Amino acid sequence: MQKITSGIEGFDQLLFGGFPQGRSYLVSGEPGAGKTIFTLQFLLEGLKAGERVVYISIDEKPEHVISDAEALGWPLNEYLASGQFAILDVTANFASAQIGGGGLDIDRIIQDVLRFVRQFQATRLVIDPIAPLIFSERHRPEVAEYIRRLIFAIEDVPACTTLLTSYAPVGTDKVSHHGVEEFAASGIIILKLEKLNTKYIRTVRVKKMRGTRVDLSEYSFEILPNRGIVLRQAI
Amino acid sequence: MQKITSGIEGFDQLLFGGFPQGRSYLVSGEPGAGKTIFTLQFLLEGLKAGERVVYISIDEKPEHVISDAEALGWPLNEYLASGQFAILDVTANFASAQIGGGGLDIDRIIQDVLRFVRQFQATRLVIDPIAPLIFSERHRPEVAEYIRRLIFAIEDVPACTTLLTSYAPVGTDKVSHHGVEEFAASGIIILKLEKLNTKYIRTVRVKKMRGTRVDLSEYSFEILPNRGIVLRQAI
Amino acid sequence: MQKITSGIEGFDQLLFGGFPQGRSYLVSGEPGAGKTIFTLQFLLEGLKAGERVVYISIDEKPEHVISDAEALGWPLNEYLASGQFAILDVTANFASAQIGGGGLDIDRIIQDVLRFVRQFQATRLVIDPIAPLIFSERHRPEVAEYIRRLIFAIEDVPACTTLLTSYAPVGTDKVSHHGVEEFAASGIIILKLEKLNTKYIRTVRVKKMRGTRVDLSEYSFEILPNRGIVLRQAI
Amino acid sequence: MQKITSGIEGFDQLLFGGFPQGRSYLVSGEPGAGKTIFTLQFLLEGLKAGERVVYISIDEKPEHVISDAEALGWPLNEYLASGQFAILDVTANFASAQIGGGGLDIDRIIQDVLRFVRQFQATRLVIDPIAPLIFSERHRPEVAEYIRRLIFAIEDVPACTTLLTSYAPVGTDKVSHHGVEEFAASGIIILKLEKLNTKYIRTVRVKKMRGTRVDLSEYSFEILPNRGIVLRQAI
Amino acid sequence: MQKITSGIEGFDQLLFGGFPQGRSYLVSGEPGAGKTIFTLQFLLEGLKAGERVVYISIDEKPEHVISDAEALGWPLNEYLASGQFAILDVTANFASAQIGGGGLDIDRIIQDVLRFVRQFQATRLVIDPIAPLIFSERHRPEVAEYIRRLIFAIEDVPACTTLLTSYAPVGTDKVSHHGVEEFAASGIIILKLEKLNTKYIRTVRVKKMRGTRVDLSEYSFEILPNRGIVLRQAI
Amino acid sequence: MQKITSGIEGFDQLLFGGFPQGRSYLVSGEPGAGKTIFTLQFLLEGLKAGERVVYISIDEKPEHVISDAEALGWPLNEYLASGQFAILDVTANFASAQIGGGGLDIDRIIQDVLRFVRQFQATRLVIDPIAPLIFSERHRPEVAEYIRRLIFAIEDVPACTTLLTSYAPVGTDKVSHHGVEEFAASGIIILKLEKLNTKYIRTVRVKKMRGTRVDLSEYSFEILPNRGIVLRQAI
Repeated sequence: MQKITSGIEGFDQLLFGGFPQGRSYLVSGEPGAGKTIFTLQFLLEGLKAGERVVYISIDEKPEHVISDAEALGWPLNEYLASGQFAILDVTANFASAQIGGGGLDIDRIIQDVLRFVRQFQATRLVIDPIAPLIFSERHRPEVAEYIRRLIFAIEDVPACTTLLTSYAPVGTDKVSHHGVEEFAASGIIILKLEKLNTKYIRTVRVKKMRGTRVDLSEYSFEILPNRGIVLRQAI
Repeated sequence: MQKITSGIEGFDQLLFGGFPQGRSYLVSGEPGAGKTIFTLQFLLEGLKAGERVVYISIDEKPEHVISDAEALGWPLNEYLASGQFAILDVTANFASAQIGGGGLDIDRIIQDVLRFVRQFQATRLVIDPIAPLIFSERHRPEVAEYIRRLIFAIEDVPACTTLLTSYAPVGTDKVSHHGVEEFAASGIIILKLEKLNTKYIRTVRVKKMRGTRVDLSEYSFEILPNRGIVLRQAI
Repeated sequence: MQKITSGIEGFDQLLFGGFPQGRSYLVSGEPGAGKTIFTLQFLLEGLKAGERVVYISIDEKPEHVISDAEALGWPLNEYLASGQFAILDVTANFASAQIGGGGLDIDRIIQDVLRFVRQFQATRLVIDPIAPLIFSERHRPEVAEYIRRLIFAIEDVPACTTLLTSYAPVGTDKVSHHGVEEFAASGIIILKLEKLNTKYIRTVRVKKMRGTRVDLSEYSFEILPNRGIVLRQAI
Repeated sequence: MQKITSGIEGFDQLLFGGFPQGRSYLVSGEPGAGKTIFTLQFLLEGLKAGERVVYISIDEKPEHVISDAEALGWPLNEYLASGQFAILDVTANFASAQIGGGGLDIDRIIQDVLRFVRQFQATRLVIDPIAPLIFSERHRPEVAEYIRRLIFAIEDVPACTTLLTSYAPVGTDKVSHHGVEEFAASGIIILKLEKLNTKYIRTVRVKKMRGTRVDLSEYSFEILPNRGIVLRQAI
Repeated sequence: MQKITSGIEGFDQLLFGGFPQGRSYLVSGEPGAGKTIFTLQFLLEGLKAGERVVYISIDEKPEHVISDAEALGWPLNEYLASGQFAILDVTANFASAQIGGGGLDIDRIIQDVLRFVRQFQATRLVIDPIAPLIFSERHRPEVAEYIRRLIFAIEDVPACTTLLTSYAPVGTDKVSHHGVEEFAASGIIILKLEKLNTKYIRTVRVKKMRGTRVDLSEYSFEILPNRGIVLRQAI
Repeated sequence: MQKITSGIEGFDQLLFGGFPQGRSYLVSGEPGAGKTIFTLQFLLEGLKAGERVVYISIDEKPEHVISDAEALGWPLNEYLASGQFAILDVTANFASAQIGGGGLDIDRIIQDVLRFVRQFQATRLVIDPIAPLIFSERHRPEVAEYIRRLIFAIEDVPACTTLLTSYAPVGTDKVSHHGVEEFAASGIIILKLEKLNTKYIRTVRVKKMRGTRVDLSEYSFEILPNRGIVLRQAI
């Protein structure tokens, strides 16, 4: 099984070399835990190596994502300009189903994403987050079906490795917003904001990873200019 | 990225200089935690610097807000009189949807707010709270959609930096009333009323802040006449 | 801002002089915490000073309230006879909406209360509890709207200061029965029955108070004949 | 205010002399906590003094109640025979409303109970439990209304003092099954089955009691032949 | 009151001699706690003494029950063959009500059970479990009514003592699946699987028992070949 | 009672020799706990001994299962090629019932599974997981009925021993996704991912096992290349 580097300093060792290629992994965390930076750093790693990468934005404005990356010293705009990087906004696909009657056109959304990823020849893909946050309990069966089919579909593109983020509800121990993401993904990475004695620290751990040995320990990390996420000691 | 000062003594250091300009930040806390004072102090900072600022009141009487500020020694009435400060009451916009049938006219509310903020040329905006408290579970999808669109819309006014308050439900670990505010905002500030040994103290911490480094520590603060919120030591 | 004395021994110091006049304050507590005695003592303080005061009873028989006060040595009957004190029973106003169809006639209830308070020229008002306990989840939006409007309306009578009691559900950390009282009131006073080592004690603390500095500490209190609630040390 | 003895060894001291006469008190506890024995002992105290007393059975067979009392050495059958003691079975009154459509005929049930108690000239009444356990969430508003009206009605018989039992749901901190009993009753007595170190003990405490001073401490108790409940030390 | 031996080594002492005859007792526990073995051992005790006993199986295959007993060295098949022991399968009675429309024919089920028990002249009866596990929340009022009526009915057969098992939901503190079993039964026996330091042990305690003194302590037990459940020390 | 070896190093001792043959056992765990590896190792044990085994995949792609096994050094493909091993995908059977109207055709699914297992002459069967994860609360009665009937049916094939996996919801103490699996299965094996001091470890314990003595202790385990799950010390 081929492995690809994550681009996160110190993280590949937890996976005994990197992410098994061609699968989809869940990056779970509360707001503020560092999910978006984690995924951008993963894409940047590909961009630096000349790969073509795609970021699918659902709840965040693309220009904010770009400017947040620039605040870290990451020139995503240059890669956008060069055509090596693409941002896809699929919010409109969800809009009609959000309020009231019409069902979610699952097949259409998934085909749109898949066609784009294939035509762009992306080797790294981020969907941030996997499903719009506004879907309520009422939509749960459809969202669950969408998530399951989406993950099945993107794992059909063997050259492309995917990170999917999921909101971990604040004030609970759950690792995903809709309760099904953790079962369908091939791996789970958990980011946390924890109080250690009197200090808040950020931590990362691998909870599930199919097809490779893993180091299950929890590591603290920092977010530094230019370097982004840098793992520190196991805690 | 441009930063603006918060006006809260000791707080800008947590943000390495201040709030990234043009974004929307959530100020979350239980009743009594100090949310309204935090936001008024943020507006006062702008007023002192000659900026034009807007306070949107939803669940509180404007005259009470003014008199509470005066109890602290802040002459908001003078700024109101000079036309540098405006209070907008949008409660009526929500009234028809509160009980029974008719849906929430999201677009209308957002357009009203946006038009006012643009015409007034506000550089600081407070919406306190982001959504009326009386919306029940039944309205959740609409309120979630309203919150998401509102934040998207006001972040389209790049000169204006916004604070949105949210009721943190008493007796839980949640940081917002409707469960979606924390995902949509560009930053989260948490105010708490905590029992430390045998004393209740007020604390503030930054939980999420896009586009800047942050100090994640929790600081105790006091509310003093004239000076308002003053940060003390990290706890 | 004018302040009025509470009549509770040792309590005014927590408010740096007393209650800001003309606002509404929530007195929250479990059954047995002392809510009714707290509010009667507040009214008695006014009666002794020659003020006109009103007690609105919703779930309790007026004659029981009177006889409970007499058990403490407080001659409320005499003030009733002299016309300085009035008890208003509004239970009937809620009756039709309690079971089944008809909505709650919010405007009518609020107008009745308001007219009575104004005509009586009351300077102190107690509504015990703020809403009948039997309203179920089904009525939540209407009860929330009723509570919000009621508080807005009675704060329009600037000469009258109001205490509203709310049942804190037993076995939870919540401070109100309907979940909205704590947001709408201008202040929150929490009464508790707590196990300290092997003894149960009663405690009081101020959680929120607009327009004045507060002492946030929790104090134990006793209920003594004639003197009623008497604060002891901070715990 | 007149007080009556409880008949429970050591308990009257917690109430500074006994139960204030003519009110209704809730006896709350899990299955096995001793509620039925507590109430039978209260009735027995009256019977020994020549009073006329009534036990209203709802979920338990009257003959089981009698034989359980006899297992403790209490000859309730003799008092039944002498006409000083009556057992009323009102289960049938609830039957039609239990499953499906027809509402609960609250007025009829309450009038039946009241007429019986008045004609019998009872001075002590036990309703065990206050409402049948099988009512589900669906019936909550009606049961709440029934409980409130029942307590109001029986407190209109000033010569009669009443104990009402309520199932405290197992595995929670709640003190009643329907969530409204604790607010409507004039007092609350809590019976518990607690693990103290490695032993299970039974305890009793008074949580609320209108119209009298109370000792809030929790006392362990034993159930002994003939003597029934006997309080031991405060714990 | 007549008492009968349980057949469980060391258990009768907790009941000061055995089960009061003719009543129904709940045996509650998580899967794996030992409920089925407890009840089979209770029946075996009767069989050894020449009594006629009945086991009503609802969710388990009768042949599995027999073979599990045989794995312990208990020759239930021989008693089946001799006609002293009967297994009744009432699953079919519940089938029509399980999915969708038709209500549960409570009277029919209860009459069937009762007629069988009476004709068989059983002195010990086990219903394992008291109600099929698949009934959902939707059926709760009917299941509650079924359980209450069933217990009332079988307690009308004074010669027959009954054990009813109930699934204690895993991961909660509840003692029954439907939430009403614990109130209706004349006694409750709780079986647990607990972690004591680093070992999992099985424990038993009596939580409620009408008509007899009880030892409330919790005892560890083992399951041994031939002897079945054997109580060890109080823990 | 015949026993069969599990193939997991050190595990058969917990069962005093192995799994009682012909029954169905639940393997419960959070994502990442090792459920799939546990069941593949169980099948591999049969394959090595020349048995015919079946793996029924519901939420995972068969090719992923194969490649995950290969990452561990297990050549399942060879057994597939030789016809000794079969993978059955029954997802389509569930598809029509997933969204909206049509009920689940329980009998059809169960007959399909049963016919296949019988024709294949399988002696080991894995259903991973027992029911698709996307079924929501709405389907609970049907899923419960499906699970109960499925387990009854496959236990009618005495030569075949079955492992069923179930998602233990993350952040709770539950051992199954639908809440009924634990009652219907003949045994329960719990896999966990636990934090021990500062390290995450994997553990296994037997919670319930009909028809055999069990060691209830919890053991840590590792996942090693070629050897798969290897039990370490009791913890």
